[in-house]
Amino acid sequence: MPPDISIDPQRLWAALMASAAIGRTENGGLCRLALTEADRKMRDLFAGWAREGGHALAIDRLGNMFVRRDGTDPALPPVLIGSHLDSQARGGRFDGVLGVLAGIEVLGTLDECAIATRRAIEVVNWTNEEGARFQPAMLASLAFSGERSVEWVYDRRDRDGIRFEDALARIGYCGQAPVGGRTFDSYFELHIEQGPKLDVADIPVGVVTGGYETVGMRISVRGETAHVGPTPMDRRRNALVGAAYAAVAIDDIGWRYALEDGKTTAARLDLFPNLAGIIADAAMLFVDFRHPVSARLAAMERDVMAALAESARRSSTQIALAERWGFGGLAFDPDLVALVRATAKRLGVATMDIRSQAGHDAYHLAKVCPAAMIFTPCTEGISHNKREDIELARTVPGVNVLLHAVLARANG
Amino acid sequence: MPPDISIDPQRLWAALMASAAIGRTENGGLCRLALTEADRKMRDLFAGWAREGGHALAIDRLGNMFVRRDGTDPALPPVLIGSHLDSQARGGRFDGVLGVLAGIEVLGTLDECAIATRRAIEVVNWTNEEGARFQPAMLASLAFSGERSVEWVYDRRDRDGIRFEDALARIGYCGQAPVGGRTFDSYFELHIEQGPKLDVADIPVGVVTGGYETVGMRISVRGETAHVGPTPMDRRRNALVGAAYAAVAIDDIGWRYALEDGKTTAARLDLFPNLAGIIADAAMLFVDFRHPVSARLAAMERDVMAALAESARRSSTQIALAERWGFGGLAFDPDLVALVRATAKRLGVATMDIRSQAGHDAYHLAKVCPAAMIFTPCTEGISHNKREDIELARTVPGVNVLLHAVLARANG
Repeated sequence: MPPDISIDPQRLWAALMASAAIGRTENGGLCRLALTEADRKMRDLFAGWAREGGHALAIDRLGNMFVRRDGTDPALPPVLIGSHLDSQARGGRFDGVLGVLAGIEVLGTLDECAIATRRAIEVVNWTNEEGARFQPAMLASLAFSGERSVEWVYDRRDRDGIRFEDALARIGYCGQAPVGGRTFDSYFELHIEQGPKLDVADIPVGVVTGGYETVGMRISVRGETAHVGPTPMDRRRNALVGAAYAAVAIDDIGWRYALEDGKTTAARLDLFPNLAGIIADAAMLFVDFRHPVSARLAAMERDVMAALAESARRSSTQIALAERWGFGGLAFDPDLVALVRATAKRLGVATMDIRSQAGHDAYHLAKVCPAAMIFTPCTEGISHNKREDIELARTVPGVNVLLHAVLARANG
Repeated sequence: MPPDISIDPQRLWAALMASAAIGRTENGGLCRLALTEADRKMRDLFAGWAREGGHALAIDRLGNMFVRRDGTDPALPPVLIGSHLDSQARGGRFDGVLGVLAGIEVLGTLDECAIATRRAIEVVNWTNEEGARFQPAMLASLAFSGERSVEWVYDRRDRDGIRFEDALARIGYCGQAPVGGRTFDSYFELHIEQGPKLDVADIPVGVVTGGYETVGMRISVRGETAHVGPTPMDRRRNALVGAAYAAVAIDDIGWRYALEDGKTTAARLDLFPNLAGIIADAAMLFVDFRHPVSARLAAMERDVMAALAESARRSSTQIALAERWGFGGLAFDPDLVALVRATAKRLGVATMDIRSQAGHDAYHLAKVCPAAMIFTPCTEGISHNKREDIELARTVPGVNVLLHAVLARANG
C-alpha cells in the first residue's frame, strides 16, 4: 500500500517564483540563456536548495547538476528526475523549470514525510536544453547519452564565437564528474505541454507515449550581389527573395497537413549581406516540420524538397539542402508509461495519452534507461513566449503523479 | 577654341589599381566601409596625391575632403568634381572611386599641360555615400546641402552602436572646415552606370538627365513568439512568414512593371528573435521600388500597400509601414546637361541620354548649384559585386568629356 502523501503546492509555487525572478524580462517573461550570468544565479539557487535539503550535489564536466537523495540500498541504480533551468531568449517561466523544481519538490516531500526509498532518487538540471545559445538543443543530454563526446560539446560556439567550454568555466559550473556512463533505473521528466490539448480538454495530466518525428533542415540559398537600383529584374538573383519563396511554400505545406496535426516552421533566416543598398547573395533558412505519422512526415519532406526546387526556379537562385537532421519519433518505455497512467488512475487524476511535439532531454535519456514524461497544462498552449503561464491547481495533480510514480520505482 | 588635351589613361588606371589594393577582398572585390581603417588608408592616399600635385586640401567637419586647384580669379565660385571613395561591404573597385580619381586625373592633366583656369576647380571625396555602415546613404552630401545638421549626422550609429562622430575622430579625418555654406559654379560627377544599358549598346558615355524616382520603405511585421513544435498552424503568427509573403509579393510587383523599366527590391530583413527553436514575433523588412514615370511609381506604391495588407492576412500577422522615404526624381540642370552632351559631340564621343536609377551625391548637390552626371559603362551592368568591372578604353572617353566640360565651366 503506497503512502498517502502529496506535494506542497505553495512550496512548489514559491520555488517557481524564486526562479522566475532570475532573468525576468519586464513583461513577465524569462531570458535565461544557457551559461550566462542569469543561468549561474539560477544554478546557485538550485545548489542552495540541495544544501538546505541535505542532499549531495554532483556536477559533471558539462555542467549537468545532479542532486541526490540516497536510498537504503546503495547497490541499486537510482531513479532520475530531470529537466532544464535555461530558457529561450524570449521564453516563459515554466518551460523546463517546472520539471526540475517538481523533482526538488518530490525530494522535499519525501524528506518531510521521512520516507526512505530503496533506490536513491536524483534530480538533474541539464545544461543548454533550449539551444537558444549553443546549437543543437538538448546538447548536454545528447553527450550524456554517449552520442557525442564532451570535447565535441566543448567546441560548440555561440553567435559571438564563445566556446561552450569557456562559457561553462566562466560561470564556475564545469564539474569533475564524468558525463554519463552510470546506470539508472529510470528517468522521469515532467514538462508543460507547450501545446493546447490539455488546456482545451481541461485534463491535468498528459501521459506522454513518445515523440513526434521531426525533421529539421538548414537550407542554403545562393544568389548574387547587385545594386538594388539599376539592376533589371531579369538579372537579379536575390537570395532574400529565394528564401522568402521557400518560407512561404513551407508554411503552406504546414497548412496542407494541419488537419492531420502536421506542422511546419520557417524559424530563422540569416542573410549575407543584409543591407538596404545591395541584393543579398546568400541566405541560410532554418525550417522544421513534424507529423504524428511517419509515412506522412516522409510525404511532407517530399513536398518540402519540391517546394525548394520551385522556389529556386521562381527566384533565379540556387537552393540546396545544407544540412538535415531528425529527432523524436521514439516511443517511451511501455512499462514506465503504463506506470504513469496507472499511478494517475489510482490518484483519481484524469489523463490523456499524448505525443510530444517538442524536443526534450528525455529523448536522449531513453537511450540510457527506461524513460517517460508527464505533461501538465499550459494556458492556451502558449510557450516560448512571455505569456507562457500555468495554473497551480491544474499543475499539482501531475506533480503528485510524478511523486508516486517515482516512489513506486524507487521501491521497486 | 578649347585646347586639344586629353587625360592620361595609364595614370588613371594606376590610381584606380592603387585604390583597389586598399580594402581588397580575396576575390577581386572591395570592402572599404566608411570611416574604417581601410577608408583611412584610402584617404591618406588621396591626401598624398593632393600634396604631390601641389594642391590645397580642406577637410570639413564631416570628413568631406576638398582638393583645390586655384583659378586666376579668386572671386569666382569654383567648379566642383566629386564622388566617393567608400564601398559596399561586398562592393567593387570602381563604384564612386572612378569619379573621384577621374577628378584627380582632370587636375593632373591641367597641371601637366600648364593650363590655367579662371575659376578654381575642386575635387571632393564625400564621406559615407554607400550607406553600408551609416544610414542613410549619401549622408555627408545630404548635410552639405543643408537638409540635415552636422550634429544629426554625428549621432548616426552603425550596427555596433558606434557613433558617426566617434568613428570619424578615430580615423583622424574630422576637419575644421564648415559643412556647406559655400557657393559653387557647378558640380560634376562621373560614375559607372551600374546598369547594363551602355554596355549592351556599346556607347561610352551616358548623359545623365536626372534620376529615377525611388521610394524606400521600412516595413514592420508583428507576430507572436511561440514554440516551433506543439503550436498548431492556426495559432501561429510567424513574423518571418509575414515578411516572406511581403518579400515575394514585392518581388512580383517588380516583374509586373519590368517591361516599363520599373523594379522592386526586398533588400534587408531583420528578425527578432532569429532562432531555430522559436517563432519570431517581429520582423523589419527594407524594400525599395523605382520607375521612370512618376504616375507609374505611384501605381507601384498602391500595389505594394495592397500586397502588405494581403501578406498580413495570409500570415496572420500585423504589417505596417514603419517608415517611408523618397529620393531621385529630379532633373539635372538643363544647361549643364546640354554642356556635357555638346562636349561629347565635339570630341566625337557617342552618347546616350540616361536616367540614374541609383542614388548619388549629385542629387543633393543639385540643391546647392547646377549639377550633372556622366555615366561610363560597366561590364554587364554589374555593380555592388566583386565582379564589378570596367574597360579602360570604354572609360577614357567619359573622363575626357568630364575634363572638357569642367574646363568650359572653369573658364566661363
